[in-house]
Amino acid sequence: MAAVSLSVSTVKPLGDRVFVKVSAAEERTAGGILLPDNAKEKPQVGEVVQVGPGKRNEDGSRQEPEVKVGDKVLYSKYAGTDVKLGSDEYVLLSEKDILAVVS
Amino acid sequence: MAAVSLSVSTVKPLGDRVFVKVSAAEERTAGGILLPDNAKEKPQVGEVVQVGPGKRNEDGSRQEPEVKVGDKVLYSKYAGTDVKLGSDEYVLLSEKDILAVVS
Amino acid sequence: MAAVSLSVSTVKPLGDRVFVKVSAAEERTAGGILLPDNAKEKPQVGEVVQVGPGKRNEDGSRQEPEVKVGDKVLYSKYAGTDVKLGSDEYVLLSEKDILAVVS
Amino acid sequence: MAAVSLSVSTVKPLGDRVFVKVSAAEERTAGGILLPDNAKEKPQVGEVVQVGPGKRNEDGSRQEPEVKVGDKVLYSKYAGTDVKLGSDEYVLLSEKDILAVVS
Amino acid sequence: MAAVSLSVSTVKPLGDRVFVKVSAAEERTAGGILLPDNAKEKPQVGEVVQVGPGKRNEDGSRQEPEVKVGDKVLYSKYAGTDVKLGSDEYVLLSEKDILAVVS
Amino acid sequence: MAAVSLSVSTVKPLGDRVFVKVSAAEERTAGGILLPDNAKEKPQVGEVVQVGPGKRNEDGSRQEPEVKVGDKVLYSKYAGTDVKLGSDEYVLLSEKDILAVVS
Amino acid sequence: MAAVSLSVSTVKPLGDRVFVKVSAAEERTAGGILLPDNAKEKPQVGEVVQVGPGKRNEDGSRQEPEVKVGDKVLYSKYAGTDVKLGSDEYVLLSEKDILAVVS
Repeated sequence: MAAVSLSVSTVKPLGDRVFVKVSAAEERTAGGILLPDNAKEKPQVGEVVQVGPGKRNEDGSRQEPEVKVGDKVLYSKYAGTDVKLGSDEYVLLSEKDILAVVS
Repeated sequence: MAAVSLSVSTVKPLGDRVFVKVSAAEERTAGGILLPDNAKEKPQVGEVVQVGPGKRNEDGSRQEPEVKVGDKVLYSKYAGTDVKLGSDEYVLLSEKDILAVVS
Repeated sequence: MAAVSLSVSTVKPLGDRVFVKVSAAEERTAGGILLPDNAKEKPQVGEVVQVGPGKRNEDGSRQEPEVKVGDKVLYSKYAGTDVKLGSDEYVLLSEKDILAVVS
Repeated sequence: MAAVSLSVSTVKPLGDRVFVKVSAAEERTAGGILLPDNAKEKPQVGEVVQVGPGKRNEDGSRQEPEVKVGDKVLYSKYAGTDVKLGSDEYVLLSEKDILAVVS
Repeated sequence: MAAVSLSVSTVKPLGDRVFVKVSAAEERTAGGILLPDNAKEKPQVGEVVQVGPGKRNEDGSRQEPEVKVGDKVLYSKYAGTDVKLGSDEYVLLSEKDILAVVS
Repeated sequence: MAAVSLSVSTVKPLGDRVFVKVSAAEERTAGGILLPDNAKEKPQVGEVVQVGPGKRNEDGSRQEPEVKVGDKVLYSKYAGTDVKLGSDEYVLLSEKDILAVVS
Repeated sequence: MAAVSLSVSTVKPLGDRVFVKVSAAEERTAGGILLPDNAKEKPQVGEVVQVGPGKRNEDGSRQEPEVKVGDKVLYSKYAGTDVKLGSDEYVLLSEKDILAVVS
């Protein structure tokens, strides 16, 4: 197998998964959001860079994703799978782990 | 990605999620509600400030949300994801974690 | 947000939830019921004071609640969410946690 | 709320629940059943004294209960909720926790 | 309640349950089966002596049981509820816990 | 009950279960497969010797099994129930615990 | 049973399972992907070498697999069952554990 040259454009999420660029801490502070540090689920801010084809129903049809490329989203910090491309952090999330679009 | 300027009006909950402003302690006392401190699920009072489009059924239709913006609600203290905007506390809840409308 | 003046009549349970006034210990003893203290689920006696619209089915219809305001009910002591209004104890239960009507 | 005068005839189980009078130990021995004391689920003998309307299906119809008042039943000792009326022991069970009719 | 005189013929399993007489150890050895003693689910040999009416579907119909009275069966040692009638050991199993018919 | 003379041909798996003869270690080494010893699910090689009638659907029909007698299969070492016939090891598996046919 | 000579072409995954050749560490580094080492689900890169017939629906039809032989994929490091053929590492995955196609 040849080496995989991963870049944002080559990552195609499957099913209801969404590829999200994690916002850096300074961006979050600049945006005025403070993410409380307590025992509950922690939110994180990011930007959608790739969207899968949507969750497949039993009859083979797809559920239209609720988010699109470019959306800023809030998601749970503990959800999904972290991926690093160069120095940037990304996360592969199921759409159900996205709580809200924030822009 | 430009910094995210979060404000109540820019938070659009997905699916059956609801964005709720948490009531301060003095408001709760003034309202006459005493939230018992025991081993069971703790209730919390808040006000609905944004409502998602509703839970999506398998056939793609949506379930009409049972709450609307402005409703005062009781919800479990341990449910959802806390978000701070400036000095105010908010919580992103699934509608199923809202126990009752209290106004 | 104005302070919430909670009273029995202002609590509107959502979905299949039921608002129940917890019976005081003396009422239970007078009624002849002895609630055993062992390792199993503990029953509690109360009176239904508010009933939600019923559980919503996938097709949007509602299941008619099985209890009505005024019913005395047995429910599991560990179910639901406790709420105090003044000196009275209440509990917000899912109807499925109500075991029997006892009057 | 007036005191609740609980008696067998005033307990109306909800849904698929069944109200069962627990057999005393001497009755069980006389009947020849020996309930082994080991690490598995323990059976208990009792008599059905009240039967709920049956489990409700999604379409609102009910599943006819499989037991009737007067049936002697075997059920798991750890299932359900214990209730005492005077000196007699009862248990509120889901019908699915009843293993067999034994008479 | 009169004492319950339990015998094989008076035990009527509910739903998908099956009443099985546990084979004694010497029978198992004579039959050539060796039940390994390790960390996994342990099999046990027995004979079906009573069969319930079958699992009830949502539409009220029944699933025909796959075993019949007289079948020798393999089942998991940890499944079901043990019952003793005199000196004989029995077990009340859900049919899904029966692994195979062995005769 | 007469003693059970178990042999491969007398074991009739129920539902979606499959009766598999476990391959000895030397067979596996000869075949070139090395089963890694780490924290994840361990694979095991065996040969299908009996197949049940298939998983029953809610409507009473059966799902055709995907494996047949004679298939060499890979399955998780921790799945199913071990059975010994004489000096040979067998396992009763649900078909869903079979990962792949390897011949 | 004759010894099993396992090779990529003789492994036929069942149902929704996919057979994936795990990429070596140097390939991953060359490709520019850095897999963070933290408390969350760890991603792994591999290449699909065999695909099962797809998940079977209740009605017996199959869901078309979303991946095909030759696809480079990202999957969770903790998913599936490891298999070694000679010196090469493979993994048998359910398709739902594949997060994205990366080529």
